[in-house]
Amino acid sequence: MRNIALKLMYNGTAYHGWQMQRTEASVQETLQRGLSMVCGERVRLTGVGRTDAGVHALGLCAHFDSATRIPPEKLAFALNTMLPPDVRIRESGPAPEGFHARYSACGKVYRYAFFNSRHDCAIGRQYAAHVPLELDERLMHEEAQALCGTHDYTSFCANRHMKKSAVRTVERIEIERMGDEVQLAFSGDGFLYHMVRILTGTLLEVGFGERSAAEMADILAAKDRAAAGKTAPAQGLILWETRY
Amino acid sequence: MRNIALKLMYNGTAYHGWQMQRTEASVQETLQRGLSMVCGERVRLTGVGRTDAGVHALGLCAHFDSATRIPPEKLAFALNTMLPPDVRIRESGPAPEGFHARYSACGKVYRYAFFNSRHDCAIGRQYAAHVPLELDERLMHEEAQALCGTHDYTSFCANRHMKKSAVRTVERIEIERMGDEVQLAFSGDGFLYHMVRILTGTLLEVGFGERSAAEMADILAAKDRAAAGKTAPAQGLILWETRY
Repeated sequence: MRNIALKLMYNGTAYHGWQMQRTEASVQETLQRGLSMVCGERVRLTGVGRTDAGVHALGLCAHFDSATRIPPEKLAFALNTMLPPDVRIRESGPAPEGFHARYSACGKVYRYAFFNSRHDCAIGRQYAAHVPLELDERLMHEEAQALCGTHDYTSFCANRHMKKSAVRTVERIEIERMGDEVQLAFSGDGFLYHMVRILTGTLLEVGFGERSAAEMADILAAKDRAAAGKTAPAQGLILWETRY
Repeated sequence: MRNIALKLMYNGTAYHGWQMQRTEASVQETLQRGLSMVCGERVRLTGVGRTDAGVHALGLCAHFDSATRIPPEKLAFALNTMLPPDVRIRESGPAPEGFHARYSACGKVYRYAFFNSRHDCAIGRQYAAHVPLELDERLMHEEAQALCGTHDYTSFCANRHMKKSAVRTVERIEIERMGDEVQLAFSGDGFLYHMVRILTGTLLEVGFGERSAAEMADILAAKDRAAAGKTAPAQGLILWETRY
């Protein structure tokens, strides 16, 4: 048996998220089915984490154990012939000693895109949610800086029963406009359940002028989900990169 | 009757191009049907030009005459409720005196994207064609400069029976890489039938190392379609902007 690592991407539109579901199609199951055919044995795949339904991934890492004789570097080619076109392996190879896709990860980058125009967008609709009200992306970027650093992010976590620490480090939040598109990028050592979506929903309210200046620090201090903004839609969110 | 101008965008994947077809869905027909419902009269729409099947548009302009009482500025909202989500009006308004979407245009910008990686892309597949062989985008950009200027572009025209002048001015070709994506941008006063796709197909051959240096001037001088490269696929091409 050897431990094999995969770097992969998917368009999440047709999937009920990464994790296996009883009745809905998931990316994990789609990959496991392909891997089992290629390797000729039942395979259990572990990813860096879950993504919600409709969220895409460009740089998600995963690992699995297999006795296959196919050289790990060649697996990407074999597996891609078995996968639907909305899931692709970008690289495959032998995993470093003791590698675990989830526990070895030291950071993630997410990117969000919004189409900010009175009329909805006809192009790239799966990759940007429509926001008809005008967003002040400079104010969003400014206020976002107060959300960076090492904090207890309980206010930005959708899991009310979380017993483990909600302390995370957000290294960077960058918000910029490219024409009608407002793009957000988040880098951090890890993100709680729905954290990127709640951070984004809160920053959208800043962009609409619905939140007063310097409110971000109060939201963090409240340690209460109700203090933060709405959860932004899954559409337009991409797990961009996993750092090891 | 007044002349009304529209600026619109569409995802061309589901359409057989801009122009009305007898049996296939076209963008022009989709828009005319919507306009006829909104205006309560039969409407004939004139676009800046045609786009091929599968080509997208972000900034296509069109005009039509109508006796509708709906204020031209409001038409975009009314019409968008009648259109499928892959066609959207971005702006509507009264056309300037003597305006003609095609004859008044003084330039166009096209953008092309290629996903340049051994494995195909799972994200944005409708917006970038896959090129598995490595492209040298710097060489492409360099050689592309010889294709700019005012020339007879017969070698880059798919219409063999064209009787009018094939002289056009290409103001700018810019080619750059963003990660795995190679992007091409073309600005010019006008483009012949398939001209952007043949320019691109030829530059892809440069990027593969299949064309020798300084060959571009010879291709232009040949005034022969056979001297140029293959026609690049429609997938990944966007009519980005129309200039008036």
